[in-house]
Amino acid sequence: MKDCIFCEIIKGSVPCYKIYEDEYALAFLDISNDCNGHTLVIPKKHFVNVLDCEEKYLNGVINAVQKLAKHYVETCGFEGVNILNASGEAAEQSVFHLHFHILPRKKTDNLHTFPNLPKNKESLAELAEKLKLN
Amino acid sequence: MKDCIFCEIIKGSVPCYKIYEDEYALAFLDISNDCNGHTLVIPKKHFVNVLDCEEKYLNGVINAVQKLAKHYVETCGFEGVNILNASGEAAEQSVFHLHFHILPRKKTDNLHTFPNLPKNKESLAELAEKLKLN
Repeated sequence: MKDCIFCEIIKGSVPCYKIYEDEYALAFLDISNDCNGHTLVIPKKHFVNVLDCEEKYLNGVINAVQKLAKHYVETCGFEGVNILNASGEAAEQSVFHLHFHILPRKKTDNLHTFPNLPKNKESLAELAEKLKLN
Repeated sequence: MKDCIFCEIIKGSVPCYKIYEDEYALAFLDISNDCNGHTLVIPKKHFVNVLDCEEKYLNGVINAVQKLAKHYVETCGFEGVNILNASGEAAEQSVFHLHFHILPRKKTDNLHTFPNLPKNKESLAELAEKLKLN
């Protein structure tokens, strides 16, 4: 898509530190260079986020995420991974081409990646009633 | 698996606030009741995390995540979602049955879900060399 930085990376007109590529997905290092090995995995077709992604690309991307997670743990010395996605501006998405973050982790890295969330006021029973999908 | 709380939920021997179920995945509210609508999506077969999950279950789980994300945004009044996973104790995983968290989001919720990460010392070029998967 025009003016999409990740589409430019896919085309090769903007460089990236490529880690992996297959038919559906491309993975490269996050330019922020925070968290040792912070990797982005994107579909090779433009989708805004999880909400509009075609199933074959969504599956292709999660399969690439898994392949990289195994590679990082089995051969690169990491001990686990966090996988993060933001879909929608309200969810703090900043680049509007679907991407999953992989944060490779070690026990000794002293990171804390799960957000601190406030307690919710509605009961779980009320919420389940509102949100269930039949 | 014996002594796995999520396997007990799948069997029905431990109750849950169920949101959605299909052949591969089950979704229910996170008992912590933090973040309005915090949902867990799990495979209906026991896998520890993303590192050992069979492809058809991994795809089934991400497809259920997408279905719920769309439902939350299109019909439940949310404006986006975060999707989070921790794979491995080093990644702060606490229940050892694969689960993806969905955090439904609104612009006005005042949450901050992306972790604050320190700057990394190695250059991206060095990291790409170490981590690339051919």
